[in-house]
Amino acid sequence: MPRTKGNHEARRRDVSEAVWRVLAAHGFGGLTLRAVAAELGATTGLLTHYFPAKRDLVAYALDLLEQRSASRPRRAAGAGLSAVRAAMLDILPLTAEATDANRIWVSSWDAALADPALSGDHARRYAQGRDRLRDLVAAAQQLGELPAGDPARIAAGAQAFVLGLVVQALFAPTAFPPHRQVELLDDYLASLASPPVPHGDRTVPS
Amino acid sequence: MPRTKGNHEARRRDVSEAVWRVLAAHGFGGLTLRAVAAELGATTGLLTHYFPAKRDLVAYALDLLEQRSASRPRRAAGAGLSAVRAAMLDILPLTAEATDANRIWVSSWDAALADPALSGDHARRYAQGRDRLRDLVAAAQQLGELPAGDPARIAAGAQAFVLGLVVQALFAPTAFPPHRQVELLDDYLASLASPPVPHGDRTVPS
Repeated sequence: MPRTKGNHEARRRDVSEAVWRVLAAHGFGGLTLRAVAAELGATTGLLTHYFPAKRDLVAYALDLLEQRSASRPRRAAGAGLSAVRAAMLDILPLTAEATDANRIWVSSWDAALADPALSGDHARRYAQGRDRLRDLVAAAQQLGELPAGDPARIAAGAQAFVLGLVVQALFAPTAFPPHRQVELLDDYLASLASPPVPHGDRTVPS
Repeated sequence: MPRTKGNHEARRRDVSEAVWRVLAAHGFGGLTLRAVAAELGATTGLLTHYFPAKRDLVAYALDLLEQRSASRPRRAAGAGLSAVRAAMLDILPLTAEATDANRIWVSSWDAALADPALSGDHARRYAQGRDRLRDLVAAAQQLGELPAGDPARIAAGAQAFVLGLVVQALFAPTAFPPHRQVELLDDYLASLASPPVPHGDRTVPS
């Protein structure tokens, strides 16, 4: 078979699919050339052509995760608080696809924390996510749907909340089915929308 | 040297220390008999006596993590919201020790998600954590420091928030130094303490 550009692209797609399936089933801890080769029905030798070292495979998998996350379908949303809500819903493991992607993200944290360069890449990705949330929070404030306050600080809290909810839902899918995750997110957004209680002005027991 | 109980205990402590140091530096992805042996200055052969299979080493490391987390020093706190706050502060990576422990917890998620039994153990640990928070939330509600509402649901939200903040702080220690983490936690608690805004009663743009 002639080595055409089309074949090359098709092979790349096959490799990406195989890497994704290995990650979804076994995480980064189970990501080996051997496992990807088995999934692909190819030899380990062929794969060393793509990934000379284990680190290349990990870096490729992280890029793949970022690309797939960036190109995933997003909820349509208006401006304001509903856009903040939609952006947070887009992250949660509410579907099988989103569960796979989140399982891979959470798994990637071990691989990334062990390597300063990969860790820096992840830090940059999460900072970008916070910046996007910050802009949505600021727009919601302008519409009067969220109280005043540093939008970057509110966005950092919101990202913390949603990442932790992802972790909880992955470990306990029965305790955190989709409707429960949405309920908890809506509780969080309702708290954000409440005007802050001044110090010393809390309800006292009656 | 005679094989006494004291020697045995001392050797167990050495092994635990070596496993902990490997985890703090390389995570579960870097946890191998060879790495622990090198850290311990022992042979891999000696370690296979303790850990016949890789899975035994992972299970041991997870137990060690749980024991060290359970026995870590806790902040003294009164009842009510200050006890909720103290329990959440106890989790955050505010010191070097707490950063190591959290880095190991986050790293353990990959290992745990890849194995149904380990994943179930983690789910149980987090459920216990939520139950403890739930009781503290209920006490704060009784003192009138938190508004009414299902305390288990509030605890699930609080645990999500704190776990996600841990992840953010591990990847971006410069963006999330201890005082920033405490600020974000206090923002979160202030939101919880605000009475919820009834639907349709949000501030409108002026």
